[in-house]
Amino acid sequence: MSLRPQRTISELKELRELTADENGAQRLAWTPKWLLARSWFEGKLQGLPVETHFDPAGNRWVTLEGASPRTLLIGGHLDSVPNGGWLDGCLGVMTGLEILRRFAEEFDGRAPVTIRLIDFADEEGARFGRSLLGSSAFAGTHSIEADRGRTDRDGIRLEDALRKCGVEIDRFPEASKERRDAAAYIELHIEQGPVLESLQLPLGAVLGTKGVERHAITFLGQEAHSGSTPMHARRDALAAAAKLALEIRTIATRHPDAVCTMGSLKTFPGIVTAVVGRAEATLDQRDLDAEILEGMYQEAQEASRRFAAEERCTVEWSRIWNIEPVPFHPQLIEFCEEAIRETAGTVKRLPSGPLHDAAEVARAGIPTVMMFTQSLRGISHNKIEDTREDHLEQAVIAFDRLATKTANWILRS
Amino acid sequence: MSLRPQRTISELKELRELTADENGAQRLAWTPKWLLARSWFEGKLQGLPVETHFDPAGNRWVTLEGASPRTLLIGGHLDSVPNGGWLDGCLGVMTGLEILRRFAEEFDGRAPVTIRLIDFADEEGARFGRSLLGSSAFAGTHSIEADRGRTDRDGIRLEDALRKCGVEIDRFPEASKERRDAAAYIELHIEQGPVLESLQLPLGAVLGTKGVERHAITFLGQEAHSGSTPMHARRDALAAAAKLALEIRTIATRHPDAVCTMGSLKTFPGIVTAVVGRAEATLDQRDLDAEILEGMYQEAQEASRRFAAEERCTVEWSRIWNIEPVPFHPQLIEFCEEAIRETAGTVKRLPSGPLHDAAEVARAGIPTVMMFTQSLRGISHNKIEDTREDHLEQAVIAFDRLATKTANWILRS
Repeated sequence: MSLRPQRTISELKELRELTADENGAQRLAWTPKWLLARSWFEGKLQGLPVETHFDPAGNRWVTLEGASPRTLLIGGHLDSVPNGGWLDGCLGVMTGLEILRRFAEEFDGRAPVTIRLIDFADEEGARFGRSLLGSSAFAGTHSIEADRGRTDRDGIRLEDALRKCGVEIDRFPEASKERRDAAAYIELHIEQGPVLESLQLPLGAVLGTKGVERHAITFLGQEAHSGSTPMHARRDALAAAAKLALEIRTIATRHPDAVCTMGSLKTFPGIVTAVVGRAEATLDQRDLDAEILEGMYQEAQEASRRFAAEERCTVEWSRIWNIEPVPFHPQLIEFCEEAIRETAGTVKRLPSGPLHDAAEVARAGIPTVMMFTQSLRGISHNKIEDTREDHLEQAVIAFDRLATKTANWILRS
Repeated sequence: MSLRPQRTISELKELRELTADENGAQRLAWTPKWLLARSWFEGKLQGLPVETHFDPAGNRWVTLEGASPRTLLIGGHLDSVPNGGWLDGCLGVMTGLEILRRFAEEFDGRAPVTIRLIDFADEEGARFGRSLLGSSAFAGTHSIEADRGRTDRDGIRLEDALRKCGVEIDRFPEASKERRDAAAYIELHIEQGPVLESLQLPLGAVLGTKGVERHAITFLGQEAHSGSTPMHARRDALAAAAKLALEIRTIATRHPDAVCTMGSLKTFPGIVTAVVGRAEATLDQRDLDAEILEGMYQEAQEASRRFAAEERCTVEWSRIWNIEPVPFHPQLIEFCEEAIRETAGTVKRLPSGPLHDAAEVARAGIPTVMMFTQSLRGISHNKIEDTREDHLEQAVIAFDRLATKTANWILRS
């Protein structure tokens, strides 16, 4: 077999050399460093029997035509957050390239099914606050009007930044044409969390991406002098918020994979000599099961009203954002498990807390699965993001096995 | 008897007319509006058989010489916070003036003891963040070096602002000469809290000013992704802080008059998608009993360490400020109670949470007591600060009785 996992690791290091500085990866979408990464990647295609082009949303497609037009999609993204890591996104693209090479070599340029590698545009949304941009255009879930006028820190509009890269937002819907003949989608990614490391496992089969409920919660009490207001006379908005900060943990731990987070809490007037009159909190709840997610959201709402009443405060909720859970394809999850078991002996099924392009692809009705490789210290979006090299090698091997199993399944089905 | 409580109320309204705008009282110390109030007050002394001057700390003294040099001091302050109320501080000064008039009239210009009315300079500390400025100079507790370089919002130094009003900070220590012959100090003030209103009582006898422990508390956990970090793997600094926010209330309610307040809580990075890695809280604890205060401080520290350990965080404490409790004089408290009972029938003993000039006078060893009158809604430092007029009338009458009782006591002792 011609698969060379060490080549993938070398190429990832080459990309890091090219596009990272002392603060980490700088492949921010729609900036020169990102374009540089994409042009470097194009160079890697030389000599391969593939066709490549950008779709109208800026996603790059690399096609190895097969005996059957039915297509296995392998995806990832070359863009990074500012000061990001060396693996987030590009591990998927570069491993996909290695698998494309292996198929091309093994089948002498014409595999039984068509294989297409995608480098999705702007997965991170780090510049304009809109993640999964290219994949949502592909999936047909994108709304042009909602995104056209977004601006970056310097006030530059998303629409204009894209145009500078040769992408017209009004042509985004045409990207959905690339869905033709797509029979399955697979994606390799670092976990970006601590689960696999805590189990000392190199690889995991991803069950889907969790749904998210994201809310702003405001408790209103009564600002009062901290010296002259007896405890029983207070309407302390912070006390109500503190109760909720603790209760959401109880709500989450009733379910094995659920998470609930109060990431921000602000107090007003927020001075040492005044009882808090207003407390503004954020809540982020995630689970793979839509019913569990809805239940947790209801429980948190009820708890907040109970705590507000106990503290003689009022409470108001405002939804910031939400997305439904996206479960992956049962058969592909099984293939993913098999591939990992054959490579590493043991496997863990786990949901993904972070979102990925795979979620958009799955929402388009294409059978989808992801494979995770262990993240050291569970850290990502940071220059210290890392994965052991032997785990990266195992990842490339297991993911190649997943590609073969999926290609065979496409042929059969 | 020539005491005219209605005159005091009229004069307070006159002062409001002169120095308040649509946002409330604007008699900020060391500003033109404050100087205007003081000059208006001087006009009220015309025709009274009194001597008046400013001491080197800017406190105004009005002396009605008596048969005995032993002196009853009656105090208050004409300065206000920005956007303040119409009674805070000046109720004491204007009631003192009415009592001075009554003594002068009743004893034909020469009371049995000397009576001195003081308008303390800069009780509020609203411009330079240093309260009780004039009274601390009088008490000899003031540190010139600690205050000289303080600046206001516009960067103007305290020293320079005082000089513009004819006050040299280097001469502050000379203000302590005014303590000569001082035998007792009494002060009438609005409660600035809800206790008397909740009991439907017009007046209260103040037991002293509570001591204060004021601290900054920082919990350090681990910032982590809200989507990918399982609940059990978190080191959530907000959870530790939330537990403390609730526990300090339990600590306070073990003691009848104690208060504990978390007035500010800040979360870092403070974004909806991250577990809180650092939580910065403030704590303000107050009680009239030094042992209880010390005990509450120890309990809060222990609780914070326990919560930090539970959440696998660390905790650090840093003292912002503290002051010991200042109990008032038992005999004068008794006179105050008698005076209130004779006037209003029922009396409540209560400690003061807010600090007052009386605390500095008491620290100088001068027998001291304060009388409180009810604050509507318990609100002060706000333009809606108010007290019922019949309560103000009762206050003037009761406070006059306290003055007589105290003057007689000075003669006897």
